Amino acid sequence: MSDIAYVNGAYIPIDEARVSILDRGFLFADGVYEVAAVIGGRLIDNESHLSRLERSLRELRIGSPIPVSRIAEVEAELVARNGLSEGLVYLQITRGAAAEREFGFPAEAAPTFVAFAQKKNIIASPAAETGVKVLTVPDLRWARRDIKSTALLAQVLAKQAALEGGCQEAWMVDQEGFVTEGSSSTAFILTGANVLVTRLNSSAVLPGCTRKAVQVIAEREGLTVEERSFSVAEAYEAKEAFLTSASNLVLPVVSLDGRPIGSGAPGDTSRLLRRLYIEWATNTSRTD
Amino acid sequence: MSDIAYVNGAYIPIDEARVSILDRGFLFADGVYEVAAVIGGRLIDNESHLSRLERSLRELRIGSPIPVSRIAEVEAELVARNGLSEGLVYLQITRGAAAEREFGFPAEAAPTFVAFAQKKNIIASPAAETGVKVLTVPDLRWARRDIKSTALLAQVLAKQAALEGGCQEAWMVDQEGFVTEGSSSTAFILTGANVLVTRLNSSAVLPGCTRKAVQVIAEREGLTVEERSFSVAEAYEAKEAFLTSASNLVLPVVSLDGRPIGSGAPGDTSRLLRRLYIEWATNTSRTD
Repeated sequence: MSDIAYVNGAYIPIDEARVSILDRGFLFADGVYEVAAVIGGRLIDNESHLSRLERSLRELRIGSPIPVSRIAEVEAELVARNGLSEGLVYLQITRGAAAEREFGFPAEAAPTFVAFAQKKNIIASPAAETGVKVLTVPDLRWARRDIKSTALLAQVLAKQAALEGGCQEAWMVDQEGFVTEGSSSTAFILTGANVLVTRLNSSAVLPGCTRKAVQVIAEREGLTVEERSFSVAEAYEAKEAFLTSASNLVLPVVSLDGRPIGSGAPGDTSRLLRRLYIEWATNTSRTD
Repeated sequence: MSDIAYVNGAYIPIDEARVSILDRGFLFADGVYEVAAVIGGRLIDNESHLSRLERSLRELRIGSPIPVSRIAEVEAELVARNGLSEGLVYLQITRGAAAEREFGFPAEAAPTFVAFAQKKNIIASPAAETGVKVLTVPDLRWARRDIKSTALLAQVLAKQAALEGGCQEAWMVDQEGFVTEGSSSTAFILTGANVLVTRLNSSAVLPGCTRKAVQVIAEREGLTVEERSFSVAEAYEAKEAFLTSASNLVLPVVSLDGRPIGSGAPGDTSRLLRRLYIEWATNTSRTD
């Protein structure tokens, strides 16, 4: 964790960064968040994240504590103050702390805005070389997964089940047997016919920012991308699989529920898309 | 809100009661809570709440920060320090703050334990005289509603929809058209045949403490209680309806989606059960 955090306008040491126990983020998970990667000291694909943040806030009718255009300045300031070259910036906005604990929206409460930076090897990630193992688990989540809320308990339990199963990520499966997404990532497979498949955006999944960029890159490379549900059975038979997320970019999946995907090593298309995404993201961020 | 709160062993002014922004309760809704009523300066039906708290902690594998037997002492101390005669004690335990934000359980993190008191008219509640209006809304929640977690965003949205619809509570309805429960209460109906109906406990609903006590009292009065699902259509035709919760005890429901329940006034059975519950709860708490 980096040293300096942001809490409602102030840059302070992370050890002193606190919120009221009456904050609705703490009491009700009544808040939203975003995570953006930092490479070479620059935020990656950040407009996409801020646009999704605006949508999440709008869906929950939480006011933005500062204009969304100024949120990027806070993120950049955190990168600078922490001397962050590679890692993540996390930001969270909640409906704020009200005088009384009541479920309904408080008449008067200023939104809470906190953010912090986290060092992480994004490009030279060991997992990118070896690929990751994935475990399927039932998707226990609520019906509005398109909102990036902090009500993440189901995702916590999914990830923990994966870790205890010797895997690095969980793919959550709906009641019809179709993969929705990872506990903190989007799921892709490459079929035997070289078609990339990822679930259509809906309230069943979070609209992934990295997913969106990777789709554009893949189509530019001449790949066909089908936005549709795929079953666990279809995923077992996939030629390749990978996940996308802000903090992992594109990460090859080498096994699912202990069964090797393809050769059991990171696939060529997965590696190519990772490389092209990094190129695109770093080029784009430089022109900010 | 009362003046003195409890945070990890210390009794401090509520305005100074804070948790780290890295607390998993704030970042992931990775925590559980309980609310117990206070009448005449005594906690009501508190063993039932602490027993449910233990179950919630066990299901999420969160360690108790202090022995559960000592939690009641913290609650009593909050009642005393705040001079609380009537109201609520709220307590929340989270998996604590870890050094890094990772979805999986942290290897080293001490649970966070916070609590506070809230003044409220529990017995002389105006709503108990008038009854409350209820609005049905789709139940958007996750699949483990038996755990009293702080991932309450769906309940917040349900309550807000009810308030904006001129109602005081929302009854959430599953995809088959059956009522699960209220956004912060258990739902009961009384059929034309004088049978009390409330949903069977399962992962679809929270096992209500007040529900449990009211069931025993009702059966002692010779009422038949059926634990089964009931549809919105059946509820529209009910002779009476009421809700139960720690903070509202037993509260008559006088309309559902704008349709009067029974005569449109609090029903006799609902009023009787409220009176008997208050008698039982106050008698029981005196013998603590």
